[in-house]
Amino acid sequence: MPPSEAVLDLGARAKAASSILATTGTHTKNTALLCAADRLESCCAQLLAANEADLEAAADSGMAAGPLDRLRLTDARVAAMANGLRTVASLADPVGEVLDGWTRPNGLHIERIRVPLGVVAIIYENRPNVTSDAFGLCLKSGNAALLRGSATALRSNVAIAEVLRGGLAEAGLPEDSLIVVDDPSHETAVGVMQLVDHVDALIPRGGPALIQSIRDNATVPVIIDGDGNCHVYVDEHADLAQALAIVINAKTQRTSVCNAAESLVIHDSIADQFLPIVANALVDKGVELVGDSSARRRSAHIAVATDDDFGREFLELKMSVAIVMSLDDAISHVNRYGTGHTEAIVTKDLESARRFTREVDAAAVVVNASTRFTDGEEFGFGAEIGISTQKLHARGPMGLRELTTYKYLVWGEGQVRG
Amino acid sequence: MPPSEAVLDLGARAKAASSILATTGTHTKNTALLCAADRLESCCAQLLAANEADLEAAADSGMAAGPLDRLRLTDARVAAMANGLRTVASLADPVGEVLDGWTRPNGLHIERIRVPLGVVAIIYENRPNVTSDAFGLCLKSGNAALLRGSATALRSNVAIAEVLRGGLAEAGLPEDSLIVVDDPSHETAVGVMQLVDHVDALIPRGGPALIQSIRDNATVPVIIDGDGNCHVYVDEHADLAQALAIVINAKTQRTSVCNAAESLVIHDSIADQFLPIVANALVDKGVELVGDSSARRRSAHIAVATDDDFGREFLELKMSVAIVMSLDDAISHVNRYGTGHTEAIVTKDLESARRFTREVDAAAVVVNASTRFTDGEEFGFGAEIGISTQKLHARGPMGLRELTTYKYLVWGEGQVRG
Repeated sequence: MPPSEAVLDLGARAKAASSILATTGTHTKNTALLCAADRLESCCAQLLAANEADLEAAADSGMAAGPLDRLRLTDARVAAMANGLRTVASLADPVGEVLDGWTRPNGLHIERIRVPLGVVAIIYENRPNVTSDAFGLCLKSGNAALLRGSATALRSNVAIAEVLRGGLAEAGLPEDSLIVVDDPSHETAVGVMQLVDHVDALIPRGGPALIQSIRDNATVPVIIDGDGNCHVYVDEHADLAQALAIVINAKTQRTSVCNAAESLVIHDSIADQFLPIVANALVDKGVELVGDSSARRRSAHIAVATDDDFGREFLELKMSVAIVMSLDDAISHVNRYGTGHTEAIVTKDLESARRFTREVDAAAVVVNASTRFTDGEEFGFGAEIGISTQKLHARGPMGLRELTTYKYLVWGEGQVRG
Repeated sequence: MPPSEAVLDLGARAKAASSILATTGTHTKNTALLCAADRLESCCAQLLAANEADLEAAADSGMAAGPLDRLRLTDARVAAMANGLRTVASLADPVGEVLDGWTRPNGLHIERIRVPLGVVAIIYENRPNVTSDAFGLCLKSGNAALLRGSATALRSNVAIAEVLRGGLAEAGLPEDSLIVVDDPSHETAVGVMQLVDHVDALIPRGGPALIQSIRDNATVPVIIDGDGNCHVYVDEHADLAQALAIVINAKTQRTSVCNAAESLVIHDSIADQFLPIVANALVDKGVELVGDSSARRRSAHIAVATDDDFGREFLELKMSVAIVMSLDDAISHVNRYGTGHTEAIVTKDLESARRFTREVDAAAVVVNASTRFTDGEEFGFGAEIGISTQKLHARGPMGLRELTTYKYLVWGEGQVRG
């Protein structure tokens, strides 16, 4: 079933806006971002009222406390959205960068120039702030944003979009540079996934069910922002105090995020010494541990881990523990169970570090630091639209640069092919 | 329906090989390429025998002369395949390039390193040389190649792969670095499109039916190598002699390729002068012309063009002609009917050139040269795996670089997140 007329119309409007944005200068884009930021703050009461209606409906339908909190807007959260737009305005514009260029023997001069993708569609869940954050990153990188949020946040998202579109209009840009799909049915989500003539990239932000629906239905190009089953491997040559601090931080500093560690891998030769210490420290922090038999022999705190546990992104105070006999085994374990997000090694040994960084297949491989650093902010991108766990187009944290593509310009003086 | 056990097994074997290739040095990869090249030549008789069986079956089933010729191997074509591998061996290895790197205020040192994609799947039609060409590019860029050719070329492809795998073994590399799917059913093609745990990128090489099947079925990341409905726009400020040479070359130098021009767009103010000349010259070359009423008024050689004609990739001696009243109209026409492949302007005017290059949305925008230059060879990449018409990952001609991704390495001294 092709997308409905209504969804096709939204796609066409976004596409038309994108062709204007593609040649809009940085100054105008920044003006729109700053106008939109001011408007978010001045219209805060109106946004909170719309959000209150969403919250009431969600509470009536029995939404749990966690999702309910993610749905909630407050004065502070609206101010944070506004400041997010101001931050994006302050970032360098990636569009127009000459990536490389050369002259061919026949005199043709070729340049490769960074340009916007065009229309970026984002399907996301229950967090109204994504409406504003995604708008900001898409606009600064010259893209129209076609946003399809969850039904539960519809009133909030529509209200936020109305305010942001006012900022676009104030700067003389097409309001359709931001379109929020206001029919939150499953059909419109699938329709957006199939707008092959209008959507240049689709970025889903949600859990495994959304990712599976994208895989089943999407016909447009997709960047998967997938799970993070991140490991910390404590090598036989690790500084154990450093390893302890890194493991505790990676697992417990924030548990609900994709760059939190879910699995601890320890070299057998230091396990007798290190495992009891780290297990006690983790348990003190409230972490539930599951592990293989070799780990369980060394700490009474560790319950039996199933094979499924090693492959799972817990997103809570739970961690799997595996003991390995060698660096080779550690790399195999990480490559087998990892999701290609972030994998860390703690070691003082150069060869261990070099082999781990070369042989582990992940977006980010970390030596002697917490897995928690893999995000756009910590990498210095200023902001991020997500973290890619696929290899095509972008890998790891995605900032403004990852929302662009390139075109070749070929300058001749009448050359024809012989 | 998930991929069959047999297809899953091929995927797993390719994936296992890819993890070895990812850390294989340039010298070993080159050795394998050169061994494979020598073996293609020394096993030529065996390849021609397998090909002869394919040719006989194809002729019996009534294959037309054109496809039959593309299916045919000869001594010269086998030598060209071998020399193609030698060329790839001579190209720089893209793997290991440090794309950028920086140090964060907290002391973390971040590097972005070019690495292979992993497993590259290619689904292609009827051309046995693609088996060797794709193998060479994938191997040099550190990727395992999972190839699914057409049923008509199966014996040829299997024979070629057997020879190439001998080259891999001779260099000490896993033979599964190259896998040809030897069951040419529709189910195996769909299975390859859905190997989400094993295939990092799928590149289809074929016509619209294959592209549609990919859109409908693929769940793995895809790079679309699509149609080229390429335009030449002759601006009011064009050098008309140059324009004539470029139009003739772009349309007639080779018609069956995606970078051949299909559409001629002429500014109204020079159409009285230029159109009769170019129409006569094209007709002399055997080109059939269709055009809008304004074009037809100026040349009796031009038949009525339907809207469909302006959007069509003819791939033969046929061309659509449109007259526009302005540069704006020219850009609109090109963006409306183009397929995002290659679009050319002929002009002496700086502003026309700058606006056309900025506002036309295509992989390659050419000023004062033939559209025929958009390919990996002419761009200086040494070889190409295809020409992307999508914006995600790669755009335009794809060489070794476009068969890679990157990973981030993060070097710390115990940093944790506060």
